Order: sequence, then structure tokens, then C-alpha cells
Amino acid sequence: MAPVTNARHIFTEIPTGLPEPGKHIAHDTSRTIDLENEPLNGGFLVKTLILAIDPYMRMKMRDASIKSYSPAYALGEPLYGYGIGRVLRSEDSALKPGDHIYGLIPHEEYFVRQDPKQYVSLENEYNLPWSLYVGVLGMPGQTAYIGWKEFSKAKSGETAFVTTAAGAVGSFVVQLAKLNGLKVIASSGSDDKVAFAKAAGADVSFNYKKESTKEVLDREGPIDVYWDNVGGETLDLALAAANEYARFIECGMASQYNESERYGIKNAIFFVTKSLSMNGFIVSKLLHKHAADFYHEVPKLVKDGKIQFEEDLKRGLDQVGQGLRDISDGKNQGKVVIVVADS
Amino acid sequence: MAPVTNARHIFTEIPTGLPEPGKHIAHDTSRTIDLENEPLNGGFLVKTLILAIDPYMRMKMRDASIKSYSPAYALGEPLYGYGIGRVLRSEDSALKPGDHIYGLIPHEEYFVRQDPKQYVSLENEYNLPWSLYVGVLGMPGQTAYIGWKEFSKAKSGETAFVTTAAGAVGSFVVQLAKLNGLKVIASSGSDDKVAFAKAAGADVSFNYKKESTKEVLDREGPIDVYWDNVGGETLDLALAAANEYARFIECGMASQYNESERYGIKNAIFFVTKSLSMNGFIVSKLLHKHAADFYHEVPKLVKDGKIQFEEDLKRGLDQVGQGLRDISDGKNQGKVVIVVADS
Repeated sequence: MAPVTNARHIFTEIPTGLPEPGKHIAHDTSRTIDLENEPLNGGFLVKTLILAIDPYMRMKMRDASIKSYSPAYALGEPLYGYGIGRVLRSEDSALKPGDHIYGLIPHEEYFVRQDPKQYVSLENEYNLPWSLYVGVLGMPGQTAYIGWKEFSKAKSGETAFVTTAAGAVGSFVVQLAKLNGLKVIASSGSDDKVAFAKAAGADVSFNYKKESTKEVLDREGPIDVYWDNVGGETLDLALAAANEYARFIECGMASQYNESERYGIKNAIFFVTKSLSMNGFIVSKLLHKHAADFYHEVPKLVKDGKIQFEEDLKRGLDQVGQGLRDISDGKNQGKVVIVVADS
Repeated sequence: MAPVTNARHIFTEIPTGLPEPGKHIAHDTSRTIDLENEPLNGGFLVKTLILAIDPYMRMKMRDASIKSYSPAYALGEPLYGYGIGRVLRSEDSALKPGDHIYGLIPHEEYFVRQDPKQYVSLENEYNLPWSLYVGVLGMPGQTAYIGWKEFSKAKSGETAFVTTAAGAVGSFVVQLAKLNGLKVIASSGSDDKVAFAKAAGADVSFNYKKESTKEVLDREGPIDVYWDNVGGETLDLALAAANEYARFIECGMASQYNESERYGIKNAIFFVTKSLSMNGFIVSKLLHKHAADFYHEVPKLVKDGKIQFEEDLKRGLDQVGQGLRDISDGKNQGKVVIVVADS
């Protein structure tokens, strides 16, 4: 068979503000690949099906000399992120043609790898759309499920406060808390998102730009579980509104990623006087412990309609730039997913 | 038998600064008690042997209208605190004459109570001095032992950072950490205390008033366990110096009890990026879970000389005021204990 185009989405220039498609990242169709004869060197050839677009990707578009817990993208190379591919050929007995794999996938249509251990093989026993496996069944869902399961110690009748409650992680946390019988207070930054968190089951859903977080917590608290996606002053208010023995789950601190703008937490004294606990985590480091339970339980919850999830699907690898712009502007309705190919 | 004097130490006036003996607290010998005929009403008569003098007592000498997690002392009534008494007579089958009890004891020579459940009966199988049962075998020892056991997850070869390391709690934590095979960094506020923490086993013992905590942690860290007795900037520096998965144990925040002087913690972001955990606790609320292990293990460690403990003993109930002054001024050498009677 003749070689086919192997389109890629490349990191071309470090942006200072929002990344511009065509300038900082570029769709490149100059390469081809011979799918039958591309050498595998003991590895496997994968066709990219699905790519997730996530906020952390912007942080990787930086000068590689600036250290962070997640490495910078390399200039001139494809972006990468969580995604799903289908194995076309394999010289490794761990994978066979037709297998679907989940993990960090380069933003190109076809690729060869040698280490199958960096990927999870997906069963998809209920034939759910593959896109769900980067959303509610992928990293955001795993973040919500694993963080909640590991640290919430939730008891029916308690109260949870969830921030960025309409996000891919937050909306799942709202639903998990409701499945566990908790009252849920949900904060978001727009009226659309308030409505979405409400539809996900939040008992109290409010727009923190319009209503005082302190007043809502004074009225609806005290809180037993705090799911933190924002940090800063909201975390301080949650400490003040905490019940004795409350659990703080630190998933992210979106308000604090810029060091020069860091807020000083004044209410740490409540850790002692209220016997509070706080746990931060990075989902990839806990996944091995919970992956079996996650893939056993969550696909069934989704199939049975017990967990709802909203996707903003875009078709074609060339839509990566638009997807990144949308999440930067907050224009997306649900999790942004690029469908590179259907099968 | 004729009535005997029943001396008391009474809270007489709310102090603004340090309490002055004779003004804010007063030794009173106006009362008597007939030990053979004092009515028990189904309860028990106790002779006070030992009284601990602790920093939290100053916080209780406040206007009762100011709320806190620990109630204010009542004006005109005796102070109270952790102590040990010997039962003289009892109408309750839970206690018999000769039993020694530990718990909150009023600052008077004899007293009657009806609820035996508020006290722990002490065995003292190794015939250790009773004074140790308000120190290394009492609340400070329980604080160190229970906090460490419940939250440290200590592993041999790790590094612990202990603040107020020469205190009754801190010096025990230093020794527990060494028994568990950790490297210990200890901070204190005077050269005498630095020497004491060093003698307790700390590998690195420094005076934070003379040496930069940041520089010591940069040189000797990263740290895996942080024992916090101070909060504030030291906590912030510990977050910066934390290893991945470090555990923060919040026992106290001595620098933060005055609300107007609260320090803003800037490094909370590290909870997420380093997967940190933090637990605050109040020992009285965890005691039921660990009391049996504590009284089984720790007296033997003390008898065998594996845990050292320094006491500053004063004889006579009239020494309570001096004891309080000494701990306020930091003049005490070890745990201040009032020996009211030997037996």
C-alpha cells in the first residue's frame, strides 16, 4: 500500500498569552507513513482516534528551562496529551492489532512506540463512545473518582463544597457526593455553569462572581468535605466554614499557579482547633492503586445513566488549536475532545 | 477526726498580661474538710497528689464571654488542669480507696466527684514517680505518641523536622522519630533548649532566633514529616522544604493564637504538586483509640530508659502561680509539675 499522510499538530513558538493556531502551534501535513512497512523495532504502530484538550497543556507551552512538575513541550515536536489509539500492527506480545490503548498520545495521526506499559488497554465492554474514555472514563473522571474515594471519607448526611463544579472533574465530584448521600454546595464562575452544576445534582449552586462565597457557606455550611480546584481565598473561607473533622481534598489551585499572585492562607489554625485533614494528590501517582476498581465501576455507572457527562466534540486533528482557545476563553460546553478518527 | 485545711488555688481576676500570684490567682486556706464525714452522694473523695502546669491554662484565664475550644476558668473557683489524685473513700464501685486517677483535677487539696468515667485509673506497674504520669506518661506524652502514631507514617531513613523540640511534647517526638530510624532536625528558641533537643537525640538542633530556618531546611532537608507546634512562617518554610508525600502534623500553632497577628501561608500550592497531607488533632479526642497501647508501651520505654524526660518539680499547692510565671517566661527547665502531696 502507498504511504499515507501522517498529519501532526506541532509546538512552533512559545506564546506569552493565549496560544494562536498557526503561530504558536501549527497543523503540519508534510509527513507521510507507510502503514504496512513502517519499522516497529519490537514495538507497535497506533492509529490515533481521540485526543483530550486539557488546561494543563497551556502550562507545557513554556520555555523548557522553566521547571515544573510537568515537563515542557519540545519546540518542533507534536503536542501530546491523554488520548486513545487503536493498535494497527504489533511486534510486542502485550498488544495485538485491534487493541485500544489509553495514555499520553502524540498529536499525530499515526505513531510507533516500544513501551506498552505506559498505556492502559481498554475493554469497553458496554460499547460506550471512545471519547468518554478521555473524559468521565479518563483522566478527569479518574481524578474525581480516585480523589473522592481515597480522601473524602464521605458519610451520608454530611455537606460537601465543590469548586469549579461544572468542570469535567467538578461535575463528577458533585455526582459522586450525591450518590454518597451528601448535601452539595457548588461554586462556578458563570450562570451557565451554575445551571450545569445544578443539573448534575448540586443542592446549592452559585456564581461566585455574583454572590459572596462567605455568605453562602455561612448560610449552607458547615462543610465536611471540601473539593478544592481553586485554592487562595476560597480555601481560606472553606477553612473558616469547616466542621470539626472536615476533609480538604486538594486537586488543584487554579487561582495560585502564578507565583507572584499567591494568596496568604490565614485560617490554618483551624487544622488544630477543628481536627481538620488535608490531602493533595496527582492522579497519575494514585492510578495504579485504583485503576481496576475504576474501570470496573465507572463504565457501568455511565451506562446506567447514574453519572452524566457533557462533551464538546470537535472533528479533525486540525481542531486542536481551536479547542485550546475555547478552554482558555471558557467558551466550551463540557469537556473538549478531538475526534481524530472514528475507528 | 477533726476537719483539716483544704487549701485551694483560685482564679480571682482576669489578667491582661502575665498572671500575677496574689492578684489574678490566689492561694486560699480558708476552707476545711472533714475527710471521714464529707458527704459523697454516691461519688468519691480524692486527695490531690500531682498537678501539671501547662501553657493552655493562660488561655483559660479570660472573660468567659470570649469563646474558644477550651472553656474559660470561672472567677472565684479553683483553677484546674491535668493531674493525679488518690481515692480516699468511694461509694461508687468503679473506684476503691487507694486507686490513683488521672484527668482534670481542681487545684485544691481534696475534692469530691460523682463521675468516675472522666478519669483514667492508673496501674503504674513499674512504680515510676507519679509526676511522670502528667508528663511523658500524661497529656504531653499522649500528644506526642498519639499524633506520631496516627499521622507520621514514618519510615526509617526519612527526615523529620520538629518545632519547639525541647518542649514536653517536642522532645518526646524527637525521641519517637529517632526510635523509628529517622534523621531529626529540631528547632528551639534558646541555646539551652538547643542543647536539650540535641541530648534527646536530634541530629540537627538549631536556635531559630540565631540561624535561618530556611537555610537549615535547604541544607538538611527535604523533610518527610513536619511536627508543627508553631505554625506561621515556619509552616510556610516547611511546605517549601517538603519532600513529595510529606506528612504535616498540626499539634499547635503557638505563633498564631492572636488573631490579629495571623500569618498568611503562601505555599499551600505544594499540597497539590507534592502530594502532601496535613492532619490537625486535639489529643483528648483521639485518646480513647490509643490509650490502651499508650499505657502498655510507654511506661516500659520510660522504665528501660529509652525515653528520657525532664521535669521541673515544685513542692506545694502554693507554687502554682510561680509555675505559671516560669512557663510564661520560658524559665522552666523541663515540664513544670506541682507535687501537692507525695501519697
